[in-house]
Amino acid sequence: MRIAVCLTNTTKVAPWLAGLREALPGTLVEEWAPGAPQADHAIVWAPPQRFLDEQQSLKGIFNIGAGVDALLKLKLPARARVVRIDDGGMASQMAEFVCHALIRHFRELDCYEDDVRNGAWSYRRPRDRADYPVGIMGLGVLGERVARAVAHFEFPVLGWSRTPRAVPGVRGFAGQEQLDEFLRATRVLVCLLPLTRETQDILNARNLARLMPGGYVINVARGAHLVDDDLIALLDSGHLAGAALDVFRTEPLPAEHPFWRHRKITVTPHTSARTLREESIVQIAGKILAMERGEPIAGVVDPQRGY
Amino acid sequence: MRIAVCLTNTTKVAPWLAGLREALPGTLVEEWAPGAPQADHAIVWAPPQRFLDEQQSLKGIFNIGAGVDALLKLKLPARARVVRIDDGGMASQMAEFVCHALIRHFRELDCYEDDVRNGAWSYRRPRDRADYPVGIMGLGVLGERVARAVAHFEFPVLGWSRTPRAVPGVRGFAGQEQLDEFLRATRVLVCLLPLTRETQDILNARNLARLMPGGYVINVARGAHLVDDDLIALLDSGHLAGAALDVFRTEPLPAEHPFWRHRKITVTPHTSARTLREESIVQIAGKILAMERGEPIAGVVDPQRGY
Repeated sequence: MRIAVCLTNTTKVAPWLAGLREALPGTLVEEWAPGAPQADHAIVWAPPQRFLDEQQSLKGIFNIGAGVDALLKLKLPARARVVRIDDGGMASQMAEFVCHALIRHFRELDCYEDDVRNGAWSYRRPRDRADYPVGIMGLGVLGERVARAVAHFEFPVLGWSRTPRAVPGVRGFAGQEQLDEFLRATRVLVCLLPLTRETQDILNARNLARLMPGGYVINVARGAHLVDDDLIALLDSGHLAGAALDVFRTEPLPAEHPFWRHRKITVTPHTSARTLREESIVQIAGKILAMERGEPIAGVVDPQRGY
Repeated sequence: MRIAVCLTNTTKVAPWLAGLREALPGTLVEEWAPGAPQADHAIVWAPPQRFLDEQQSLKGIFNIGAGVDALLKLKLPARARVVRIDDGGMASQMAEFVCHALIRHFRELDCYEDDVRNGAWSYRRPRDRADYPVGIMGLGVLGERVARAVAHFEFPVLGWSRTPRAVPGVRGFAGQEQLDEFLRATRVLVCLLPLTRETQDILNARNLARLMPGGYVINVARGAHLVDDDLIALLDSGHLAGAALDVFRTEPLPAEHPFWRHRKITVTPHTSARTLREESIVQIAGKILAMERGEPIAGVVDPQRGY
């Protein structure tokens, strides 16, 4: 068996090669270069079209991130299945990141820290958790883990997904026909959707305006879910109280973008959940072996559905 | 039955009177004034010595905060029992506050936000949760709830208490003889101890120096647990990475205090867990009725032990 590794965008290749070789003894694991022999499986991040054009024998293409939207825009080898990372340590990180943003806003810790920077010992009236229902869009591995963490802190939790998903402790909504009801009952909106034709621009003026007054938006999915100008208009009108944004249409966020300096927006540089190499290597190696034995594996992407 | 309410320090009295009257119909609930008739029970916050001197018939003195250290410094009526708030919504708030501080430090979100303020899109190598064992001093109602929240995020959790306490998922240490072992195995130290003669100044140079290098201190108990200058020296030497401090020897924190502007210290104005009136009134009313029926109640303070 031969495995091609094709990682771009500053991902270090050497530790992936070493880790995969250790996890799959007796397997040829090589960094791809143009003209390389045909491989059976590939581990990729943002591969060039040429890689996919040349590697027509691929059975599995393992994407080292959770989002496959960029990969699916390329032309893929006919029989290759695209496989997502299911977790790879990302779900816990996502739970941490979202809870941090949620608590920081709910408890006004950002305001308290600002006051302290200005030398002021301030008092704010405690808020009631019951007034801050948290609505999570997307109830996959990440969404479900985030829902569990938010419920741990005793916030009311709502979930919205394409098809109905029963998650304990989560009031579930599904499909376009229940979207408005979900939004109207939500104050803190967490976007964890896959990016597809259906979900692109879903955080737009129409939908964000339906959130409870004083709504807060946490986008940790993809920048293209959010219509940037619509968010700014609703923040400036006062309907929305703020936003924590970790993903953007263009990354790094362009220097002239208004998000950088908007006082109601907290920007982080796409750091909410990072692929942890060790966990991911173990997961991918296990899936490659399972595929070779003809067993079913989790995380196979449906190209029509888009995730 | 007659109940005296004696709340000072900006606590609004009227809603407490209304809530207690509603919760205890047929009971006389009055704000105390000098010379008032003898009451059976008192609800207090920072009462003057004169109140206690006059009210010699008190059976129960219900403190509306969790910490009774200030109250125990006063001379109390002979047969009065001092009763703490057990939770009153404080445990969940404490879990929120500590997890926010922990995640913010562990994930370097404060640094990322600083970078963004300076217009920089930065990258930091992800840290491993296994390298950040969280040690919780004090395993009462609050400490146990915080331990559960920290464990939810998959950090290793250690606990230290005066006497051994078994908490699921927490590696337990007890007493002076296991303190060093506990500190040496801890990177993020959370202080939730009651303030007593034994615990005063416990966060001193000797003990803080035993934390793992790059240690982080979260003090949400009392300012007098911490030796301010010792903390600053260990932060400046680089042994400690930072501190989140919500409580101080003098509150409000005096304007000239170095904590205000130390770049490794995050100051908040004693806001980690506030008494939530509704929950507290229900709890106190229930305890008063139980005491009157001669039943045992939780939260009775042992004046010798100090909590």
